[in-house]
Amino acid sequence: MTDNTYASAGVDIEAGQKAVDLMKEAIRTTYTPEVLSDTGNFGGLFAIDKLKNFVSPILVASTDGVGTKTMVASKMNKWDTIGQDLVNHCVNDILVQGATPLFFLDYIASSKLNPEQIATVVSGCATACRAVGCALLGGETAEMPGVYQTGEIDLVGTIVGVVDKPRLIDGSRIQSGDVVLGLASTGLHTNGYSLARKILADFDWSMPQAELDGQTIGEALLAIHRPYMREIQTLWHGGIDIRGLAHITGGGIIDNFPRIFPQGISATIQRGTWHELPIFGMIQRIGDISDDEMFHVFNMGLGMLIVVPLEHEAQARALLPELSRVGTIISGDGGVEIL
Amino acid sequence: MTDNTYASAGVDIEAGQKAVDLMKEAIRTTYTPEVLSDTGNFGGLFAIDKLKNFVSPILVASTDGVGTKTMVASKMNKWDTIGQDLVNHCVNDILVQGATPLFFLDYIASSKLNPEQIATVVSGCATACRAVGCALLGGETAEMPGVYQTGEIDLVGTIVGVVDKPRLIDGSRIQSGDVVLGLASTGLHTNGYSLARKILADFDWSMPQAELDGQTIGEALLAIHRPYMREIQTLWHGGIDIRGLAHITGGGIIDNFPRIFPQGISATIQRGTWHELPIFGMIQRIGDISDDEMFHVFNMGLGMLIVVPLEHEAQARALLPELSRVGTIISGDGGVEIL
Repeated sequence: MTDNTYASAGVDIEAGQKAVDLMKEAIRTTYTPEVLSDTGNFGGLFAIDKLKNFVSPILVASTDGVGTKTMVASKMNKWDTIGQDLVNHCVNDILVQGATPLFFLDYIASSKLNPEQIATVVSGCATACRAVGCALLGGETAEMPGVYQTGEIDLVGTIVGVVDKPRLIDGSRIQSGDVVLGLASTGLHTNGYSLARKILADFDWSMPQAELDGQTIGEALLAIHRPYMREIQTLWHGGIDIRGLAHITGGGIIDNFPRIFPQGISATIQRGTWHELPIFGMIQRIGDISDDEMFHVFNMGLGMLIVVPLEHEAQARALLPELSRVGTIISGDGGVEIL
Repeated sequence: MTDNTYASAGVDIEAGQKAVDLMKEAIRTTYTPEVLSDTGNFGGLFAIDKLKNFVSPILVASTDGVGTKTMVASKMNKWDTIGQDLVNHCVNDILVQGATPLFFLDYIASSKLNPEQIATVVSGCATACRAVGCALLGGETAEMPGVYQTGEIDLVGTIVGVVDKPRLIDGSRIQSGDVVLGLASTGLHTNGYSLARKILADFDWSMPQAELDGQTIGEALLAIHRPYMREIQTLWHGGIDIRGLAHITGGGIIDNFPRIFPQGISATIQRGTWHELPIFGMIQRIGDISDDEMFHVFNMGLGMLIVVPLEHEAQARALLPELSRVGTIISGDGGVEIL
């Protein structure tokens, strides 16, 4: 049986089919009982009977790419992690509204299909999907000579998750006096690569750097975007009142955090309360970039911000010792001040 | 209020925001009552309470692109139809399993963001979404210099629809003696553009062609991919037993139609029973291409095949006079013979 929900398009149909054959088993390992794989001809089928138990189920959907992190993968010729970056980014994007993933679809395109490379990328997607119980329900590979530069790919993912309305997180209950807790990022995650690549272009990306604690630049830049689902679930199950979640992506803390503020709310973030990974210091030093621009472009070591009432802080940190208190919610006009 | 579910990434954040501002109103016109737009921060929210009335709701999802039809749009500098192509392609892809669309998300990337161009493309998506009652729930625009060729874009869409299990169409009831009805395509739809562009490269695409009944090559190649939802719904509501539906995309009738056959079933398709649009004849003549290759690459004027029992044929054709009988289901080993 072929996995017909995973299709390919373009001039080299044979290469596309070979890629599909190579990745088929990895995709199947992500199938949850809801996936109706035997009847999937054109679209992927996902049964949602169990949502009948929800008070008021809401689907949460997001499409995103990994930006020019694909060019880092291309330069290092390392293709097994970029799919994980993509899935984890998408998982976090819907997690901040309280949703858990149901299924994911990917899209990979390049000027010329390389079946092994594409299968490696999709297997990375499957690895990350499996880790969060998300079905890799379908996808598309496309060969588009004339559109893409030689050797480069684009990688796009769409995730669909669900949240029951009473559990929807939208930041509306955030109030002055609440505490901002932070979870560390592993590196740039999937944002700021155009700037980082430009600044670091003249360096040898395969040479260990003392400034990076012995990591190479290639390794530091390819560090896998971390998913925060298990950590947030630990807080939910522990009864913590999560009033707001912000996934720190393009635009950094300064642009992302205010997106969840209700009227009349601001925040202060206190530097020194978390570990700013050395790759950020290296980029800032070499590029001679201002603090303000750094905090607008990069996550600076914080991948997820969690707003809880002061009285829940101690229990949250007991449940998840990794958490650090990085800031405070105050009255204001919607801004974030980095102190 | 900004439409935060429509995000942009890349180096030129300002251009991305301008594009979002330009397309915002068009996107809003697609919102169905299920869209919770006021609380959408990161992902798009879509309430599915009404699916509680289903016996067993199944989500059907598909991701696809429009291939190098984007290069035709680029060459003709006409950007208002390519978004319609994308949405309609996706609508048809899930329609063949009996699903009607709930929501759609798009992704547009290029080396340099052109806000007006992107807004025009997304407005095209919105036009097509509105026509089928599908919400344009979110999207992403990305600027990726170094990945894309100058002036070219890629355009990717993901659709999520729903079908109640008793109404799922999977071809399993197709049997020998059934009739194959056809609905016309408007042109190449979204497949075969790499070959067509190569063969027609040396012609003036803006000059009216007698062979195309006065159309230019550019017009013929940009003819909008047609959605078949209303036509198929007319048959459903008229009580026609639709045993199988095949959307004729990449691979043509020969590769797509057998995907829905149960064991022991083949089909014959009779040329001359439908109108083969002149663009196909022109491509075949200039490229000196075999009939076999033409039927493998292009839809040849048939965009949707519908399998019904013989005793329903007359009523189906009365409901939808446009339908023509193009073939017959026979016993066999899964092939399609073009007579």
